[in-house]
Amino acid sequence: MAGRHKQTCSLAGFLNVFGDAWSLMIVREAIYGTTRFSEFQRNTGAARNLLSERLTTLVNHGILKKVNIASKGERYAYELTEKGRSLQPLLAGIILWSNEHLYREDSAPNRVIDTTTGDELHGITLTHTPTQMPHDIRVVAGPGASSAARKRLAEIY
Amino acid sequence: MAGRHKQTCSLAGFLNVFGDAWSLMIVREAIYGTTRFSEFQRNTGAARNLLSERLTTLVNHGILKKVNIASKGERYAYELTEKGRSLQPLLAGIILWSNEHLYREDSAPNRVIDTTTGDELHGITLTHTPTQMPHDIRVVAGPGASSAARKRLAEIY
Repeated sequence: MAGRHKQTCSLAGFLNVFGDAWSLMIVREAIYGTTRFSEFQRNTGAARNLLSERLTTLVNHGILKKVNIASKGERYAYELTEKGRSLQPLLAGIILWSNEHLYREDSAPNRVIDTTTGDELHGITLTHTPTQMPHDIRVVAGPGASSAARKRLAEIY
Repeated sequence: MAGRHKQTCSLAGFLNVFGDAWSLMIVREAIYGTTRFSEFQRNTGAARNLLSERLTTLVNHGILKKVNIASKGERYAYELTEKGRSLQPLLAGIILWSNEHLYREDSAPNRVIDTTTGDELHGITLTHTPTQMPHDIRVVAGPGASSAARKRLAEIY
């Protein structure tokens, strides 16, 4: 999948890294605090081979780094790089668009909260300055969350 | 690809519609003003079968509508719905993230301009209100645009 688009276009470049059904799910999990292969597998539902390939691609693009966390031998964790973490506002923007346009009112699976103020966030706006990382935003269960999703989101924080 | 993710998660829902290498390229083209099958094919480089399948999916999800524009017989155009057009700020946000993080400085393929003020836009911020549609933003060639991309972008406006 990498390099599928040959056009010099910033969107094409983005899709050459993230243009599949799984990569952004893995980034979501990393933002939620997942670091271990087995946890990524459980929390995304991705098949083992596919997950392995996507994690390697994300490491190659500097979104995740693979760290040996064993005191002896090898035991790996995948951690977000600063570049990977910078996707958080964009992913929140995707979630907010999705809530507004893909679900019926009052059935949004997620809500996005500014935890500094407790306010719910609802949209994005384009700015003259580069994207600032918010102090602390959290994705929490919305009115349409399944009990499984509600349980998963409650585990995170 | 539709419905691949079973989780109730707004990101999973988004990826069930747009989680592939081509769908957002097609939406980009529709925002650029492309309406005809052959133009989508030329401007995205998508294979005929794949393009046909993705256009149908986007119509089924209410992102595009298929309109018979022939005075006699059948001749179809694909037009953005209001829901489809609402993706414009999010796509601009993706382009801005991509510019900042996937390209070396001064080699960004695109720039995003607020044409009301002439200012260049650089990032996104999350807001308490739903996303407002900007009056007029345009994606123009950046310093890293190829001559083909530069020519294509110059055709649009």
